[in-house]
Amino acid sequence: MMDKIDFLSLAKKLKGPWEPMEVLRIDGYHVLLALFDGEYKFHKHDGEEMFYVIKGEIEIELKNETVKLKEGEGFLLPKDTAHRSKAAKPSIVMAIERGNLRTIWVHTHTK
Amino acid sequence: MMDKIDFLSLAKKLKGPWEPMEVLRIDGYHVLLALFDGEYKFHKHDGEEMFYVIKGEIEIELKNETVKLKEGEGFLLPKDTAHRSKAAKPSIVMAIERGNLRTIWVHTHTK
Repeated sequence: MMDKIDFLSLAKKLKGPWEPMEVLRIDGYHVLLALFDGEYKFHKHDGEEMFYVIKGEIEIELKNETVKLKEGEGFLLPKDTAHRSKAAKPSIVMAIERGNLRTIWVHTHTK
Repeated sequence: MMDKIDFLSLAKKLKGPWEPMEVLRIDGYHVLLALFDGEYKFHKHDGEEMFYVIKGEIEIELKNETVKLKEGEGFLLPKDTAHRSKAAKPSIVMAIERGNLRTIWVHTHTK
């Protein structure tokens, strides 16, 4: 029996904002499900990352601009790009990235 | 300026059923958008493939079972697994797979 994946039911099992759950791997690539709520910290990765909004509305803040995404919209974040994710209300996001992606925290001058 | 991806608007540009459009690549992995409508042919791939239903309802027919997927549901098809996709009404699907995925047509005894 092959199991299907109910993203919205799985989303109910998320522990909290900014704690993605690994949903599956495609040949080693990770598909993650995350709750975005409030504001995360500035960071970057050594690989690309795709975001897709399943429910809600999010913002990906970059150095010089902010990308606003609604339900059904996605965004490919380039490698080595500092970003901070935000959501004014709880939002469910699918993220796809390389398995062993490295995260580098980016220091900012704002407190 | 970083461009976002509006999956539902892009879906309007699809040429027809079973003609996926490449939306983006994540480090070489492909994110495809496809219209499922009617029935496709039995085939398999030399890598895994994930399906995620954005709009509508689809069926992935396997040898011994059929996986039914509704909006917000996904499915990871194992490598080398013969399958045939179906949709009773036009449905929009996101598929994720390795860049140079090979497709092998599977002959069936039904006409």
